Amino acid sequence: MPRPPLNKDTTMCISLAAHPSNIGTRFHNYLYEELGLDFLYKAFTTNDIAAAIAGVRALGIRGASVSMPFKQDVLDLVDQVEPSARAINAVNTVVNDGGVLTASNTDYLAVQQLIDAHGLAPDATVLLHGSGGMASAVGTAFRDKGFQNGVVIARNPEAGPALAERLGYRWRPHVGGATGSIIVNATPVGMAGAADEGSSPFEASVVEAADTVFDVVAVPSETPLIASGRAAGKRVITGAEVIALQAAEQFERYTGVRPSEEQVAAAAAFSRAQ
Amino acid sequence: MPRPPLNKDTTMCISLAAHPSNIGTRFHNYLYEELGLDFLYKAFTTNDIAAAIAGVRALGIRGASVSMPFKQDVLDLVDQVEPSARAINAVNTVVNDGGVLTASNTDYLAVQQLIDAHGLAPDATVLLHGSGGMASAVGTAFRDKGFQNGVVIARNPEAGPALAERLGYRWRPHVGGATGSIIVNATPVGMAGAADEGSSPFEASVVEAADTVFDVVAVPSETPLIASGRAAGKRVITGAEVIALQAAEQFERYTGVRPSEEQVAAAAAFSRAQ
Repeated sequence: MPRPPLNKDTTMCISLAAHPSNIGTRFHNYLYEELGLDFLYKAFTTNDIAAAIAGVRALGIRGASVSMPFKQDVLDLVDQVEPSARAINAVNTVVNDGGVLTASNTDYLAVQQLIDAHGLAPDATVLLHGSGGMASAVGTAFRDKGFQNGVVIARNPEAGPALAERLGYRWRPHVGGATGSIIVNATPVGMAGAADEGSSPFEASVVEAADTVFDVVAVPSETPLIASGRAAGKRVITGAEVIALQAAEQFERYTGVRPSEEQVAAAAAFSRAQ
Repeated sequence: MPRPPLNKDTTMCISLAAHPSNIGTRFHNYLYEELGLDFLYKAFTTNDIAAAIAGVRALGIRGASVSMPFKQDVLDLVDQVEPSARAINAVNTVVNDGGVLTASNTDYLAVQQLIDAHGLAPDATVLLHGSGGMASAVGTAFRDKGFQNGVVIARNPEAGPALAERLGYRWRPHVGGATGSIIVNATPVGMAGAADEGSSPFEASVVEAADTVFDVVAVPSETPLIASGRAAGKRVITGAEVIALQAAEQFERYTGVRPSEEQVAAAAAFSRAQ
């Protein structure tokens, strides 16, 4: 079912990032085509986020996906902030309802959905590697799902303890002898293009002691950590799952249509094939 | 030569109007496809022209075509105003060069190009019907091309004399016994959907006395006035020529590529076939 030709009534959605990728543009436009929706999605960059958001409002742009470094700034530029964005003080999604802008965070929501979907029990200990924006989203999603026992592992002597304190978790600068039944990587270790692309943030013994291995790195989705988790027979949750689920959540908020899991998987595969 | 799939580097152009049509969207996207340009064009409406123009700047939108009722307001929102827009105090085109916005008026430029293309001599008397924005653009284009003898025919007792005075032309509330070798309709008379759709603003005797019959009404391009001019064997200039030429001028300013006359004609025909 091809979408109608581009016309004056086509609804536009955008993304705003300092360094946009093509992933969102390809993901959303693929699904518009697949579902026959008269929508259009395009990535933009800006050096004036306030004017860009004012433009979203003035032009009637339906949705804006927000990436680094604008996730905090946008909090002050919208009319309503949902709990998902308030919980982590970061926005990745803005929906425009007739000039009223509502901010949310679908990364947080996606992690919560994955916790449910994989049946993770809140009495588990969570070993969370990282202290940046994504670590904050993941840690808060776990904490808000009732996971009270956690360790934030982060070398950064300010961000690490600060995140741990906010979550009510302990802080360690290095893994040391710590173990957890759920181990989560929320750092760039293992990411394509990163200096430590081929590395794993957790040693084999820590993987061995865990039940669940969760990596938020999405490209590649088969990171060294995920590979070691699979090899050890652990439950694995990949960054590709997070990114597809959060994008599906954005898609539904923008269009009112929830794509099927198969459609999301096909769009996610298409969005990476470039 | 199809254009590349929509991506983060696709250059966006827009239009801003209270009541957008599909004509510009179809015209520009047709030529992008035809010429294989990685561009995208879409009509928008707004109730906040200042924020919309700020958005153009912040999002790096390359060009904005401006229609009623924003043509004057935009003068104060750009960085540079070209003589074509300054001459008539109205903007229909904004070009964004890395955050520097330049306003121009391609209606004015298109009329000047048609005066040259049809070899109209400046010693002719111009009978100009209308006193609105398009009458101002057309009258000023003639005056600036050296046509010193003109009559503005307009019932409006403020706008009519004001335009006539600015041009150095005479004013008449009705045609009366006036004749001119160039007669121009710059009113909506004869326009599809107007109350006087089937009417001509000039009587047969005025057409008979003229050499050139010029109608800025573009839809339909074969107005009763144009039909009577053709029947009387006069030189005719249609609104379709104006709209295609001004759009080609915009297209070149946005993309740096000048489409051929054949390509413009095909795009114009496509833009009306809906």
